[in-house]
Amino acid sequence: MSLSHIQLLIIFTNLLSIASAFDPRPTLDICVADLSSPLRINGPMPCKDPSTVTDNDFFYSGLDKPGNTSNPFRVAVTTVGVAVVPGLNTMGLSMSRLDFEPGGFFPLHYHRSSELHVALEGSIEVGFVTPEQNYKYYSKVLNKGDVFIVPAGLVHVQRNAGAGEASSLTILNSQFPGINIITAAAFGAKPAMDSSYLANNYQLDENTIENLQTKRWV
Amino acid sequence: MSLSHIQLLIIFTNLLSIASAFDPRPTLDICVADLSSPLRINGPMPCKDPSTVTDNDFFYSGLDKPGNTSNPFRVAVTTVGVAVVPGLNTMGLSMSRLDFEPGGFFPLHYHRSSELHVALEGSIEVGFVTPEQNYKYYSKVLNKGDVFIVPAGLVHVQRNAGAGEASSLTILNSQFPGINIITAAAFGAKPAMDSSYLANNYQLDENTIENLQTKRWV
Amino acid sequence: MSLSHIQLLIIFTNLLSIASAFDPRPTLDICVADLSSPLRINGPMPCKDPSTVTDNDFFYSGLDKPGNTSNPFRVAVTTVGVAVVPGLNTMGLSMSRLDFEPGGFFPLHYHRSSELHVALEGSIEVGFVTPEQNYKYYSKVLNKGDVFIVPAGLVHVQRNAGAGEASSLTILNSQFPGINIITAAAFGAKPAMDSSYLANNYQLDENTIENLQTKRWV
Amino acid sequence: MSLSHIQLLIIFTNLLSIASAFDPRPTLDICVADLSSPLRINGPMPCKDPSTVTDNDFFYSGLDKPGNTSNPFRVAVTTVGVAVVPGLNTMGLSMSRLDFEPGGFFPLHYHRSSELHVALEGSIEVGFVTPEQNYKYYSKVLNKGDVFIVPAGLVHVQRNAGAGEASSLTILNSQFPGINIITAAAFGAKPAMDSSYLANNYQLDENTIENLQTKRWV
Amino acid sequence: MSLSHIQLLIIFTNLLSIASAFDPRPTLDICVADLSSPLRINGPMPCKDPSTVTDNDFFYSGLDKPGNTSNPFRVAVTTVGVAVVPGLNTMGLSMSRLDFEPGGFFPLHYHRSSELHVALEGSIEVGFVTPEQNYKYYSKVLNKGDVFIVPAGLVHVQRNAGAGEASSLTILNSQFPGINIITAAAFGAKPAMDSSYLANNYQLDENTIENLQTKRWV
Amino acid sequence: MSLSHIQLLIIFTNLLSIASAFDPRPTLDICVADLSSPLRINGPMPCKDPSTVTDNDFFYSGLDKPGNTSNPFRVAVTTVGVAVVPGLNTMGLSMSRLDFEPGGFFPLHYHRSSELHVALEGSIEVGFVTPEQNYKYYSKVLNKGDVFIVPAGLVHVQRNAGAGEASSLTILNSQFPGINIITAAAFGAKPAMDSSYLANNYQLDENTIENLQTKRWV
Repeated sequence: MSLSHIQLLIIFTNLLSIASAFDPRPTLDICVADLSSPLRINGPMPCKDPSTVTDNDFFYSGLDKPGNTSNPFRVAVTTVGVAVVPGLNTMGLSMSRLDFEPGGFFPLHYHRSSELHVALEGSIEVGFVTPEQNYKYYSKVLNKGDVFIVPAGLVHVQRNAGAGEASSLTILNSQFPGINIITAAAFGAKPAMDSSYLANNYQLDENTIENLQTKRWV
Repeated sequence: MSLSHIQLLIIFTNLLSIASAFDPRPTLDICVADLSSPLRINGPMPCKDPSTVTDNDFFYSGLDKPGNTSNPFRVAVTTVGVAVVPGLNTMGLSMSRLDFEPGGFFPLHYHRSSELHVALEGSIEVGFVTPEQNYKYYSKVLNKGDVFIVPAGLVHVQRNAGAGEASSLTILNSQFPGINIITAAAFGAKPAMDSSYLANNYQLDENTIENLQTKRWV
Repeated sequence: MSLSHIQLLIIFTNLLSIASAFDPRPTLDICVADLSSPLRINGPMPCKDPSTVTDNDFFYSGLDKPGNTSNPFRVAVTTVGVAVVPGLNTMGLSMSRLDFEPGGFFPLHYHRSSELHVALEGSIEVGFVTPEQNYKYYSKVLNKGDVFIVPAGLVHVQRNAGAGEASSLTILNSQFPGINIITAAAFGAKPAMDSSYLANNYQLDENTIENLQTKRWV
Repeated sequence: MSLSHIQLLIIFTNLLSIASAFDPRPTLDICVADLSSPLRINGPMPCKDPSTVTDNDFFYSGLDKPGNTSNPFRVAVTTVGVAVVPGLNTMGLSMSRLDFEPGGFFPLHYHRSSELHVALEGSIEVGFVTPEQNYKYYSKVLNKGDVFIVPAGLVHVQRNAGAGEASSLTILNSQFPGINIITAAAFGAKPAMDSSYLANNYQLDENTIENLQTKRWV
Repeated sequence: MSLSHIQLLIIFTNLLSIASAFDPRPTLDICVADLSSPLRINGPMPCKDPSTVTDNDFFYSGLDKPGNTSNPFRVAVTTVGVAVVPGLNTMGLSMSRLDFEPGGFFPLHYHRSSELHVALEGSIEVGFVTPEQNYKYYSKVLNKGDVFIVPAGLVHVQRNAGAGEASSLTILNSQFPGINIITAAAFGAKPAMDSSYLANNYQLDENTIENLQTKRWV
Repeated sequence: MSLSHIQLLIIFTNLLSIASAFDPRPTLDICVADLSSPLRINGPMPCKDPSTVTDNDFFYSGLDKPGNTSNPFRVAVTTVGVAVVPGLNTMGLSMSRLDFEPGGFFPLHYHRSSELHVALEGSIEVGFVTPEQNYKYYSKVLNKGDVFIVPAGLVHVQRNAGAGEASSLTILNSQFPGINIITAAAFGAKPAMDSSYLANNYQLDENTIENLQTKRWV
């Protein structure tokens, strides 16, 4: 996956609604997303005609396969979301498989859903920061079979902490992954934020900021 | 795990609150469960003193290990819930690893949370029934890397559909797994339900019902 | 009401959304259901043009009349739901009148709303099973003027426990009754569940299961 | 019931929490109210020890009996709430029986839960006013077996519209009835509101207001 | 602003949905209201095409200007709601500026959102009545820089308590202000409520009531 | 206000619960916070004895006074939250006054509540970034009487964009302001995050990162 792939993936996922976690409860047994509906409302997507629903609407195959990590972050994100499993609509869950090359990481970010992080292979540092406790950092290096819970809404780290490849599953309690990469928000904003302001905010000089503003962050 | 183990596990899990899925959102960055609190309220458990929280409160190790399936259902359930990961409190998520011997199954049940079911090994049939569509049954046989979504509140099947062993991960969007086994509810109720009523309800004769009422269902 | 009537009634009711109880709150004073809208979304139905709303949209007449119990369950269910009172849309409530011949019962079921059960006449056993307390059964035989509360999501009994006719009102805190009959889910699933699996699950022989799978459950 | 009885009943009911309708969902199978707990929190009451719960915690008897209407409003309100049925805690429902002498009425009021109103006997006018439609008044005179839905949060009328006695059941989708009598709020406020302000607000002279402020409204 | 202006403003505001406070959370980053959509559903309004969104959709100018108070209430209400700032859709907030001539007041009312009231100039009495505490009245006279919180759903007073002009900001935690003026509900209902009933309800004679029913209340 | 003051203020505010916006609705008329309660639960704080509540519990005075901006950010934050107005408990609202010296800013941050930003004096740039639209930046420079809405959960800018002093009011729809400063989360985490990881994440060299990690960010 190239840089533009990760970018596209996240944008696409987000366009299918960056969401508050802890979605509203379903009010129908099933409400398989009508991916072609132009209607844009708060909450889950409109449902397609139930008579057209099949077993495959609830099914995904291939999460045992690593994704393509040929991008600057050396990470692959394979997402099982409503865009590929329309039966996830209204169900309040989505998941991804992450593959990390050595040195790979998913950029520092937060989302409004909680995250269960399960290591499949390798060594992965997962951690989060709590403003409430004066920015205390809780973390673990996860090995195969280890699990860590990342609270909703907190900035967190996901990085390959070992010498080899690593992979994991992340499960979010929202049908909408809802990812906000904090470097992209600051340096990748379009139109760009005022560079002298950013310089003050980051305690860096303005040239450094302007250089950062030319880079790609997603 | 013996029959009494699965029974204990489920009861224990449920006592830590059989819950409505789609939990209330957190109102604190973290609220690590105070497992010793006697207070019993609706919603998550009370939080312990934040100054006593450690990285380990958010961590579980060992989900790569199969559980003991020596019970009549030939299934092992290893649960990562608030009882073993107190940091799951308020996070709206929990998960289990299932291990199935050949012929093994988790008894027909429902819970009020949605479930993502990810096959790790073997062949597992997962399916659910929708009253809304006149009890239509949606299902798939999952192989390694396959995923299926089970909607909240619907009766569902989880069974080893292959000749060998099988294992999977199930993730629920509630901190409280909330399991209701429908045979246990009918035949294992204490005190017992009226057997002539159950005979009518199940279109079976009363002797058969009385025999079922002597069996163990959890 | 014939068997097909109860079946149609429940399916119809469910198609008007089997719902999570404890509906989202209204965000309009009134939102009378537009029963002709093809839009299918999570949550209440779309509202019709307020200028077309009349007093009758909030009104139902005839709950003092017993329903027709000429069906195998010897029970009549007369439902005051959004299909007949479109003003119930967004209001988070619905109700039914039940009439039981001697021996009549409503099949063992659950729904995701809580239920207030008020006896009008005769003797009716109402009870529910709590997995959280190892499938303890709480119940009462209700006579005229007695009330029992059935918690949301639990399997419960409603049966004529007397020698004569009986009738009652049941009120659910959802605009969508949301009924799941546990025998229909197991034996009436379409396509049918694997009979050897069901035999194991019910601790019955496979022939008995196959016979049950030929019967009608709704 | 004397005037002070209706007053006490409403205050008592309210002290057991005037609530927003559409209560939070239960997170335990049952959470029978510990009526002796001093803890006062948002949401349902704390639960008592489950091992002390009995069938009677979910049961009420006597709703077929009329209440005592010997008060200025000539109305009796018999409430089945958490104070008398502690098993209603977390269930999101409560109900009352109303008995009206000729000319009897329940004072003009609103509550934040929706209300199903079912006439048992006599002729009762039930109606509500919608600010959204420029204070349009929707109403019906209900006779035996008639049902009317009163939307959450709207001022509504409940009055005997016939020559004889009348009675009805009202069911609210909240464990807390939550009643606000609009005359009591204006004229019965303690300390009293400024009478010249009230005179302007009601387009009445100040003497009339001061006289109203000496009367009892609950 | 003439009387009809305040009337129109409130009706207009309400038509853009008199709402329960404490709106559902957003499930999209932004969902700028499509004010031209004919679709009427529970919850926020449908979103317009994101590619047409501009900075101005989130912006309002002019809250430093007093409104026109030439109406019988001698009050001006300038509302920053979704009708003028479509970006407020799904955001759970709205606000107004109030200007009071000497003797001016906003009629006694309630709404289902909480209200922060911040005095800008003059002396303003703000207070509310709690049925739960037997209609106790909590109030303060606010001067410049003073703040008062009015709980959701309670009848409250907002009046100029000084000799000069006064102004304030009120912020509600709902995108829909949701105002119910209790005099309008009682005396301005269309069709009119029965005057003998109102006479009993208000402890006034029927002629007085009939005279009140001819007046304007909004 | 010195740097440690802003730090203390934010930590203090957060300890009184960094919260999800769009709080649960109140279930009592009022629930004035018992600030001395040791109980820590999800949701609002426990309520104090209603008989001890006074008018002052709902009142704050002094928001017309600028705060002390003598800190590195040249900003003062004066917060009207539950810690100073205990009656805000359960009300779903809080607010702050911001004062900016020339060049002053509130560090780049997000919170899980929506924000209404009202300029009182000077010129203030307010803007937010939407990941859903590929990190598009929406902003305005606000002058006296201008209002801008900042959506929940998005990184946003608040800075003095003029030559003189500036001040504004910000209102959040949560009783808990819930602030997460993204520089503090990255560079101020304790224990510190791995500097080579941060260097990769920020596309800066490791020395620069290590220097940033020695600075103060709150």
